Amino acid sequence: MVEPWRDTTLPAHVRAADLLARMTDEEKTAQLSSVWIGAQSEGGAAADVAPGQHVYAARSAALDALLPYGLGQLTRPFGTVPVDPAQGAARLAELQRTIRGGNRFGLPAIAHEECLTGFTAWQATVFPTPLAWGATFDPALITEMARAIGTSMRAVGVHQGLAPVLDVVRDPRWGRTEEAIGEDPYLVGTIGTAYVRGLEAAGIVATLKHFAGYSASRAARNHAPASLGPRELADVILPPFEMAVRDGGARSVMPAYNDVDGLPAHAHPELLTHLLREQWEFTGTVVSDYYGVSLLEEAHRIADGESGAARLALAAGVDVELPAARCFSPADPLPGHLLDRAVLRVLTQKGELGLLDPDGETVVGGVPVDLNPPHMRELAQKVAEESVVLLANDSGVLPLRGGPRIALLGPLAHDQAAMLGCYSFPRHVGVHHPDLPTGVEVPTLAQALRSELPGAVFVADPAAAEVCVAVVGDRSGLFGRGSSGEGCDAEDLQLPYGQGEVLDTAMESGAPVVIVVLSGRPYALGRWADRAAAVVQAFFPGQEGGPAVAGVLSGRVAPSGRLPLGVPRGPGGQPAPYLAPPLGRHGFPSTVDPTPLYPFGYGLSYTTFTWGTPECDAYELPTDGETTLRLTVRNTGELPGTEVVQLYLHDPVGTVARPEVRLVGYARVPLDAGASAEVTATFPADLAAYTGADGRRVVEPGALELRLAASSEHVHHAVPLTLTGPARTVGHQRRMRCETHVEQLTQDPAHPQPFTSPSTS
Amino acid sequence: MVEPWRDTTLPAHVRAADLLARMTDEEKTAQLSSVWIGAQSEGGAAADVAPGQHVYAARSAALDALLPYGLGQLTRPFGTVPVDPAQGAARLAELQRTIRGGNRFGLPAIAHEECLTGFTAWQATVFPTPLAWGATFDPALITEMARAIGTSMRAVGVHQGLAPVLDVVRDPRWGRTEEAIGEDPYLVGTIGTAYVRGLEAAGIVATLKHFAGYSASRAARNHAPASLGPRELADVILPPFEMAVRDGGARSVMPAYNDVDGLPAHAHPELLTHLLREQWEFTGTVVSDYYGVSLLEEAHRIADGESGAARLALAAGVDVELPAARCFSPADPLPGHLLDRAVLRVLTQKGELGLLDPDGETVVGGVPVDLNPPHMRELAQKVAEESVVLLANDSGVLPLRGGPRIALLGPLAHDQAAMLGCYSFPRHVGVHHPDLPTGVEVPTLAQALRSELPGAVFVADPAAAEVCVAVVGDRSGLFGRGSSGEGCDAEDLQLPYGQGEVLDTAMESGAPVVIVVLSGRPYALGRWADRAAAVVQAFFPGQEGGPAVAGVLSGRVAPSGRLPLGVPRGPGGQPAPYLAPPLGRHGFPSTVDPTPLYPFGYGLSYTTFTWGTPECDAYELPTDGETTLRLTVRNTGELPGTEVVQLYLHDPVGTVARPEVRLVGYARVPLDAGASAEVTATFPADLAAYTGADGRRVVEPGALELRLAASSEHVHHAVPLTLTGPARTVGHQRRMRCETHVEQLTQDPAHPQPFTSPSTS
Repeated sequence: MVEPWRDTTLPAHVRAADLLARMTDEEKTAQLSSVWIGAQSEGGAAADVAPGQHVYAARSAALDALLPYGLGQLTRPFGTVPVDPAQGAARLAELQRTIRGGNRFGLPAIAHEECLTGFTAWQATVFPTPLAWGATFDPALITEMARAIGTSMRAVGVHQGLAPVLDVVRDPRWGRTEEAIGEDPYLVGTIGTAYVRGLEAAGIVATLKHFAGYSASRAARNHAPASLGPRELADVILPPFEMAVRDGGARSVMPAYNDVDGLPAHAHPELLTHLLREQWEFTGTVVSDYYGVSLLEEAHRIADGESGAARLALAAGVDVELPAARCFSPADPLPGHLLDRAVLRVLTQKGELGLLDPDGETVVGGVPVDLNPPHMRELAQKVAEESVVLLANDSGVLPLRGGPRIALLGPLAHDQAAMLGCYSFPRHVGVHHPDLPTGVEVPTLAQALRSELPGAVFVADPAAAEVCVAVVGDRSGLFGRGSSGEGCDAEDLQLPYGQGEVLDTAMESGAPVVIVVLSGRPYALGRWADRAAAVVQAFFPGQEGGPAVAGVLSGRVAPSGRLPLGVPRGPGGQPAPYLAPPLGRHGFPSTVDPTPLYPFGYGLSYTTFTWGTPECDAYELPTDGETTLRLTVRNTGELPGTEVVQLYLHDPVGTVARPEVRLVGYARVPLDAGASAEVTATFPADLAAYTGADGRRVVEPGALELRLAASSEHVHHAVPLTLTGPARTVGHQRRMRCETHVEQLTQDPAHPQPFTSPSTS
Repeated sequence: MVEPWRDTTLPAHVRAADLLARMTDEEKTAQLSSVWIGAQSEGGAAADVAPGQHVYAARSAALDALLPYGLGQLTRPFGTVPVDPAQGAARLAELQRTIRGGNRFGLPAIAHEECLTGFTAWQATVFPTPLAWGATFDPALITEMARAIGTSMRAVGVHQGLAPVLDVVRDPRWGRTEEAIGEDPYLVGTIGTAYVRGLEAAGIVATLKHFAGYSASRAARNHAPASLGPRELADVILPPFEMAVRDGGARSVMPAYNDVDGLPAHAHPELLTHLLREQWEFTGTVVSDYYGVSLLEEAHRIADGESGAARLALAAGVDVELPAARCFSPADPLPGHLLDRAVLRVLTQKGELGLLDPDGETVVGGVPVDLNPPHMRELAQKVAEESVVLLANDSGVLPLRGGPRIALLGPLAHDQAAMLGCYSFPRHVGVHHPDLPTGVEVPTLAQALRSELPGAVFVADPAAAEVCVAVVGDRSGLFGRGSSGEGCDAEDLQLPYGQGEVLDTAMESGAPVVIVVLSGRPYALGRWADRAAAVVQAFFPGQEGGPAVAGVLSGRVAPSGRLPLGVPRGPGGQPAPYLAPPLGRHGFPSTVDPTPLYPFGYGLSYTTFTWGTPECDAYELPTDGETTLRLTVRNTGELPGTEVVQLYLHDPVGTVARPEVRLVGYARVPLDAGASAEVTATFPADLAAYTGADGRRVVEPGALELRLAASSEHVHHAVPLTLTGPARTVGHQRRMRCETHVEQLTQDPAHPQPFTSPSTS
């Protein structure tokens, strides 16, 4: 009789339990460990071979030590050094054969990789950064993108992707702001969940990070403690994670580095076990952030030694130590019941991935691999185009017409680094290999503009120009190698590298100035906004970002992005999130006014829209009911365009201080000139729930206001609603649901299909 | 038989209960109300009478409406408009007669006033601002000051003072930083408790404010929400309040305006009732901050209407609405048992103050009143002198010798506003009466320097000077009428009013530059510190501040102040409190390094000290034990000076992330040249307690390190201690005690008495 764990007809968790029972403690612990071959900590990679010819070694001392016991994970086989994709796939397959051959069960490892702006591998498509996904307000597109990314990763033998980042931006001085989706939990939750669905649909384990509170670190400093109370945590920080677990089906979660009110996430059983598993019914794995277990000892100082750190993490609910075994060591057996709990999760996931099957890891090398095929480049282009935000165009200088004389100012106009997020391969790894080709084509904005505007004349002298295009923003990087990215926090929000001078120079020219910001965070533009003819904001828009921005400038692309976070007026006074009660959103009685220059949700078009009067099925609804709202939007201009209808909830009186408004729904409405569409939004009373003084999430009877708006501060209609009946606790099953649906009223050949924006039910 | 409430032989609470039983609901509610005669909300004061001749009207519509029922409080009879002190006392006495005559019990009102930098009254001594008290590290002196202030207030008929501010500074961008004592809870608690003792010893009800979390508001904006978890609240924000209640005997508490994690303090029963009364055994009154009850409706939006706001506040534990009746109205009877609870507290306090006695308010007018007598001016001088902090003097340019040619730069050198905190009468009220004399003599630094250095030549041209004294800092004010003070928050910590140019100009002169900062908060000095010959910091040092600073510059005064909060290097990157775990105190893995230019506790002398090797009674002590440590300090220089021995606790491993170091004791050691003293410090294990993951305050066995240091970053000796025995919960009676005692070994005629620094047992 075949051993149950080898029986492919049985469910994964049954097979995992059987296998677990056959393992020694050393074999179990090995399943919680990873090996990072090629990383400096492993003795250094072969850094001096020809560009593109890097391969990680097939063996390492750490691997050899673990091999007889098996191995839980393999860390970044493509994202550590530049690897030719086909060779990398072949070498990974070979490595898996070695691993399988080394342990008595023939088990392979789970290979994980970064995939924040696409697969972090050489020659892979570089997509826009998550802040740009947020700007699209287009979950369906993000799902499509993630599915394509996941498919390409799976094709070369990767099983798990360390994305998405679901941290809600609380202070944009944080270097990792570019990796996040925005400052509103509903936007982050819906876009993030859309990404998770796409990645998981491709068979890749999505990893939600960083759980939780990392973005709220003190003064936005990387790893600094977060001061958060239980209500802010529950209502602002946690909802995207809950949505991505419950509705997205994410199969892995990564704890945050920081502590929240003294409790480091890697040692936080309330968070990792009680909330995540018992309340949200998560059944996947919790993998540590890199060195996160060690930090319990070395930085948080809540553990005495590696062994103590391992025990704390394991007991809290960390299952796997990344990037490599240090605290989780077969030489130091972990407590049995906790060990079994974690190993069972790992083996169950391996079972789901087919890695317990006799032919479990079928990816073989030697076949041609294209990580940047045309359909992915097209997706990268579409996301980039939808993410560009037009912030000002009072003078109508945009789109640029005819063949103007253009003075293109600012070093970033000629810099690929202004297009690529810090987790793109070129910025994450490529910077350590200066002779290495970028691996994908990344036109700079200057190059793209020349292609886009063949009739234009590019002049160096602003005084001789008909229009100045002044390009400012960030160069992404890690730990000080850029102005944005992990570890590249800012003291304030003034343009880095003294680029304010670029704008000063442009303003002095006398020509109309188009400010183009290519960045990983918003920067203070108040000093120039009144004098600018136009302002365009893009957030590291990826390899197709140059053409996308150039297309918006030329008018080929109708600008349709909306701000996923506010752009401030001045550089100081942070943090100032839009999500705040009245006393947090206004100036008096403070001399510091946090009102942004351009608010959350803001963005312009090249056309005009009229909004009809909304109608509601019911203006009174019970606290467990729902109501449906209809609104007609018409493109009344002469160019195609996209309106983003946004629904904000205002709750006049509650039992605790709550945000003045918060996003509860949105719909992207692309419309040809003259076309109109009906937007239908179903609003469940559950969405009015908030965490009260007693910590319970409750929907209360009383007046509400649903604001239909073009941004968090541009309200077209305020629909009064009344909730009736008893106050209702939205207990352990805390869900959000707001379905918005757009139907074209005037048939538009370019957009024949109705589309549905994200349901999060 | 006399009614019990009239029987002066009975305890106050017995008399109060008897009186309560005789009152109608309207009479009860009136006891929770106040009237602000002369305030704009009352129809405006007589603003156009001659300077100093202002008096509030003896009557107002609001008073007339309440008169038949009685009146709980009178709001600011001296601090509203400029009042001649003797006339003010007479008018207050007359008003009390009117109030007593209006109600059937003949009860007078409690008159309250501000007294943050001394009595906020015209012609009253203006003392240094609380940040300067913190800089003295001298609780005994602060008690003496407060007793003098209280005595002068009591003499003119005032019963209650709205001080001290016990908010621990969390972000010095906050405009009210000048009103706080510092960034360490132990320093704030000991100095604040010292102030309370002095005020209460004079018969004035001290009012602890703002309870709690106001200083942690988002981005330091006034009234903005505070993001705080329960551990940070318990370990950082609350200890000074607990110390001032338990050990200081404060009889009133004022809730904070802001919300903490959604819960506004004025409607927070956990804070105002459970913690304050049930755990800390507070029996006094809770008085609202001005308009704080109304804000529950108007800003926090947790109450529907005035009536709802009143009920929420009363139920939470607010007893009295200030500054005037609005939500608490006899026309709207409040719920009986809550009403009775609050009125009983008010009447009990009136009983304690003698206001239930037949001759309860004996202060009469018509006698000469001097609110600025010589002994108070001397105290103001002593506090000012002890508060000046010498931050740099590498070149030895200070003290200034001979009769140098001095270029005195910066407009603040000639500005009284640089000396006076925002709650001083001249800045708080006087600014609305531009023709009014200041009321007390306030030499500017320029005037004081000319007196101090009669041989010096003051030149306008820096190039012709032997030394440049560049004076920069703040002008205090309210709500935008200054750069520091209530509502005058800052976006960053760059010198206001473009005063960086003053320092740039000074640096260009070629002469050695002495930077003098007169301010209400620390400012970024990193740009100039390396080039400055000397740096002197004073925090609004009051009317005698000019001579005090000049005295330090001349060497007449030995500089002895220590920083009550860090001075930052750069203007951004806030908040960056020193009280933080390792990941909050250092740069990497962030590009933003929060290390201050000058750390908490730092300050120099004109002499040198040697520290002997400390000896400890026991290096092992049980978790409920204590140990005594002895250290000899010697003045090895040629000038007198004062060393401030500071004890910091470092706890290597705990169950939650804790501050790397925190202050647990200190002793001021004034020493003549060649003299030495023995410092004795008794350290109870209780001081190692912190709030664990389960919310309980616990002392755990294990290693500790007691660091004897000259600042939070200048450690002379690290004494290893080991706590033994079981972990011990420091339950409801959470106390701190660290007694430090200094005894002169070499008899010093100037300081013959040993002195004891604050015991907080």
